[in-house]
Amino acid sequence: MTTFTSFADLRARCRDLPPGNPAAAQAIARREAELTKPPRSLGRLEEIVEWLGYWQGRNPPRLDRVDILVFAGNHGVTVQGVSAYPAEVTAQMVANFAAGGAAINSLARTAGANLRVEPLSLDRPTADFTQRPAMDEAEFVGAAAAGHDAVSPQADLVCLGEMGIGNTTAAAAIAAGLFGGGAKRWAGRGTGIDEAGLARKQAVIDRALGRHADALRDPLSIAAALGGRELAAILGAALAARHKGIPIVLDGFVSTAAVAPLAKLNGDGLRHALAGHVSAESGHRMLLEELKLSPVLDLHMRLGEGSGAAVAVLLLRAALACHTGTATFNEAQVSNKSVMPAR
Amino acid sequence: MTTFTSFADLRARCRDLPPGNPAAAQAIARREAELTKPPRSLGRLEEIVEWLGYWQGRNPPRLDRVDILVFAGNHGVTVQGVSAYPAEVTAQMVANFAAGGAAINSLARTAGANLRVEPLSLDRPTADFTQRPAMDEAEFVGAAAAGHDAVSPQADLVCLGEMGIGNTTAAAAIAAGLFGGGAKRWAGRGTGIDEAGLARKQAVIDRALGRHADALRDPLSIAAALGGRELAAILGAALAARHKGIPIVLDGFVSTAAVAPLAKLNGDGLRHALAGHVSAESGHRMLLEELKLSPVLDLHMRLGEGSGAAVAVLLLRAALACHTGTATFNEAQVSNKSVMPAR
Repeated sequence: MTTFTSFADLRARCRDLPPGNPAAAQAIARREAELTKPPRSLGRLEEIVEWLGYWQGRNPPRLDRVDILVFAGNHGVTVQGVSAYPAEVTAQMVANFAAGGAAINSLARTAGANLRVEPLSLDRPTADFTQRPAMDEAEFVGAAAAGHDAVSPQADLVCLGEMGIGNTTAAAAIAAGLFGGGAKRWAGRGTGIDEAGLARKQAVIDRALGRHADALRDPLSIAAALGGRELAAILGAALAARHKGIPIVLDGFVSTAAVAPLAKLNGDGLRHALAGHVSAESGHRMLLEELKLSPVLDLHMRLGEGSGAAVAVLLLRAALACHTGTATFNEAQVSNKSVMPAR
Repeated sequence: MTTFTSFADLRARCRDLPPGNPAAAQAIARREAELTKPPRSLGRLEEIVEWLGYWQGRNPPRLDRVDILVFAGNHGVTVQGVSAYPAEVTAQMVANFAAGGAAINSLARTAGANLRVEPLSLDRPTADFTQRPAMDEAEFVGAAAAGHDAVSPQADLVCLGEMGIGNTTAAAAIAAGLFGGGAKRWAGRGTGIDEAGLARKQAVIDRALGRHADALRDPLSIAAALGGRELAAILGAALAARHKGIPIVLDGFVSTAAVAPLAKLNGDGLRHALAGHVSAESGHRMLLEELKLSPVLDLHMRLGEGSGAAVAVLLLRAALACHTGTATFNEAQVSNKSVMPAR
């Protein structure tokens, strides 16, 4: 068990991150150049394989075990009417995950991934952050530790998803706290609120940003004051994965906002993270731009649950299959003599 | 065996196309609305399932048998130095496909698809279209018929790919012939030509457009004069699929240019076609816009062989799995009582 006992503990772990393995990535790139196809003609698929090898420190990389971790939390701020669904849906959906009936269950099966769902004190919502910090330091680092411990060292890849009615409000508040621009820049329609709901959500976020102005000086304080347990757990899991040499795939706006403090604390903090997709939630594209993450998919999904990340796993499997399964020019006796200089 | 004996035959088949099945698509949309997720939150994945059902005329749609058809042809215009690779690579790659060593072999396995490769008279390249039409009427309709006959009525989905050194030159010439703008608008770097090569390719295309000005009045004459056998076969296969109730997935620039005449002959001609991806070949994005096709993937791939279409099949499988595998609100006892009106 990991015990982060303080922001200072967690901050130190965020600042002291291991690098990847350039030799593995270079060996992968050398093989790519010998495969029977024009150089770089598989585009992003080739980059993905190099990225996997770089962070796994392995050539070829492996995707034998892919874990999808879905953290669930409840949010006191739902009393402000920021979501289209009632707060009890969080626990109902956790039961649906357990019964295998949610979209993420189908996607995990399709992607050949293990789904693990971690409900975090659902009977005890975080505080309404328009009134006080969502979590105090101990609660926040505890949730981060739970996420940290959910990452198995046996995993070759970890996808980070979430479930929590109200959590796009928390995500927007964190993004505003970290990157500025206020609620107008970051609040979107979540699961489907109307115009009045959106106005209410924006007002709630701006009120919270005012109330927690002191917290805005530090990324972890922002995440504690404005976030949620499932977001803290995602941050802890991202950190654990980095320390264990496991690349991660982010899901949507909430998953990305959850790990954003890591990037603020360490400029290289999210280099082991792939943005699985850009969601239809309006703040996500901007947040990815702030974090210099380029999504692999753009399918107008806005479900969460790790769903976009799970779909991205399919592309990772395709990329790896091309890398390991394609013959070299020599093996296949295909002419590699370009009749003019390649780009 | 299909025997198209003339442009007139083929044109009549292109103009008289069967519609899809709106009742199947509506039934699918009704089920989507009952699944445990916010309305439309799976975005493009939901649209894809409706599209599959609409064209298969089936609820739920099926992806039990997915065929990837790769047609191969040789091009007389390669003597003009328009490609980075020598013309013999076409046959070498066909042998590589047969041996299972190409990227499309790995992708077909990953996508659970059957790969069928159809070489079309590789020992007899089309004519150099800077000098005379690439194919006469009989040759063109013969190649289209070969493509038509390659589509099995047992297939639930057909992906259309190609291999042919020099065929991005043919594709750019067809696009210019159909949509105007000359070579500058449509010619790209193909497998990787340099600046001088690109200038040569553009000059070749513009010369051909001048020489075949008479052919430019008719979409099929354009495809015969400036295309290639593998492109004609793709057109024939797209037509066969439509008549057999089989949706198709297009691959890159060449695959899309090959079917563009169908859209010119019939405004609804490509409604059963999904653009699997937008490739890095510069003309592809513009061509998709002309055809009002919105690609599902943008991974900077530029390989051909059906590779982008095969990756898109993974998304189709994910979409279908969500549709058939997800529980309804009732089944899962999840509250669907939105606390405010849904969008």
